[in-house]
Amino acid sequence: MTEIKKVAFVGSGNVTTHLSKVLYQSNIQIIGFYGRNQQTTQLLAQKYHTNYGKPEELKSCEADLIIISVPDNAIEQLLQLIPPCKTLIAHTSGSLSMNVLNKLSNRSAVFYPLQTFSKEKEIDFKNIPIMLEAKEEADLTALEHLAKKISDKVFKINSKQRKKIHIAAVFSSNFTNYMFHIAEDLLKREEVPFDVIQPLIEETTEKIKNLRPYDAQTGPAVRRDFDTIQEHLDDLKDLPEYHEIYKLISHHIIKSRK
Amino acid sequence: MTEIKKVAFVGSGNVTTHLSKVLYQSNIQIIGFYGRNQQTTQLLAQKYHTNYGKPEELKSCEADLIIISVPDNAIEQLLQLIPPCKTLIAHTSGSLSMNVLNKLSNRSAVFYPLQTFSKEKEIDFKNIPIMLEAKEEADLTALEHLAKKISDKVFKINSKQRKKIHIAAVFSSNFTNYMFHIAEDLLKREEVPFDVIQPLIEETTEKIKNLRPYDAQTGPAVRRDFDTIQEHLDDLKDLPEYHEIYKLISHHIIKSRK
Repeated sequence: MTEIKKVAFVGSGNVTTHLSKVLYQSNIQIIGFYGRNQQTTQLLAQKYHTNYGKPEELKSCEADLIIISVPDNAIEQLLQLIPPCKTLIAHTSGSLSMNVLNKLSNRSAVFYPLQTFSKEKEIDFKNIPIMLEAKEEADLTALEHLAKKISDKVFKINSKQRKKIHIAAVFSSNFTNYMFHIAEDLLKREEVPFDVIQPLIEETTEKIKNLRPYDAQTGPAVRRDFDTIQEHLDDLKDLPEYHEIYKLISHHIIKSRK
Repeated sequence: MTEIKKVAFVGSGNVTTHLSKVLYQSNIQIIGFYGRNQQTTQLLAQKYHTNYGKPEELKSCEADLIIISVPDNAIEQLLQLIPPCKTLIAHTSGSLSMNVLNKLSNRSAVFYPLQTFSKEKEIDFKNIPIMLEAKEEADLTALEHLAKKISDKVFKINSKQRKKIHIAAVFSSNFTNYMFHIAEDLLKREEVPFDVIQPLIEETTEKIKNLRPYDAQTGPAVRRDFDTIQEHLDDLKDLPEYHEIYKLISHHIIKSRK
């Protein structure tokens, strides 16, 4: 097994920001940041005393691993710019096929950290599950070795599993956050601070550490309390978006208990 | 101000279970548990060395406060059974009008703990916001005094605010939990343990302690990554309920950023 010692990043978004930091702290050499946004690549490069440039300036053969972390719909175009080399190349996407990377190198892989990253928010990588795939067995072993340096939760999965994990992540993180957004907006309209609802949110996630979500379900829908549901819907009639979401999810909660 | 020293409970569900425990621990005398379910009222009564019985057996005038915690649609019928007395009476509902209690006593009130309770799950009451309303000022003061014995977060609110808080709670707790249920179900179908997604869920709620949910939003919808959204929808085509929810919430996230 060849150990991964030198990593190059393509893209300078949230995942690159957090992943480069923790790799740097684990004594991995970052040979540079490459992307279309000169400002952010330069900023990262200064932070870790390394190079930056356009994707076409990446010296692909100097890296043991190229990590591409850009929006899914930008990756194909980007791959045409990077000088090809038979080096290990991984993307960090939850849904993108591993094979899109084949254009650049046959040694394709996926390095998917299952987490929601915001630039402004610090994060402890040790607790972040990292989902790995690689076309070649030796590369998978090398990636596993690298991943275990930064996380205690490293999994080898297949593409079908990764896709479902990503969809599950959208429901349990992105959609959940949107529920919080709606709650905050409703409270703001009554001049009630969002803080008031924080302990409830904490307990909701605390509960499912020991209970299955099915068993932890509370609220008017699971009680089949149609009077309260109707009252809430009446109350939301001037907010048609929230009305629609309330109605649909309540309907499905009721249906799921039959 | 008359101090509340003796409390009677009507109903023996999750709220009564947790609230009676913390009041008992705060040296409030519980004069009894009354309700239609003899088994659960008896169990609670034995735990706190007190009486139990049918609602019609409650000696209303012996209590400083009667707390009624039953499903919203059961309360009116129950109130007809309880012997009337001009004592302070409060319900614990997020959406029910305070005035429904007037049939029994003009000294009506609301004692609404904003939390999701499951019988099997221990809870620290100190951190639970308690929302108070009372028809008479002196009763509000007495309730506030009682509430502060068990919680650090006591709020006086009006009915309109309480209703909106309850709806916000449905979104941020009940609907959120249903998102977790969908995630668990999707993972189970691929034989991926739900544990994998727990750090993501934790971070999602952790983030909104410092960021507004609007600013914390991540995922394909907020990135306007329509390819990924379409791929996820294709992948969910055999699960029409999840497909419908995915489509609607993504649509609203996209719309909310315009």
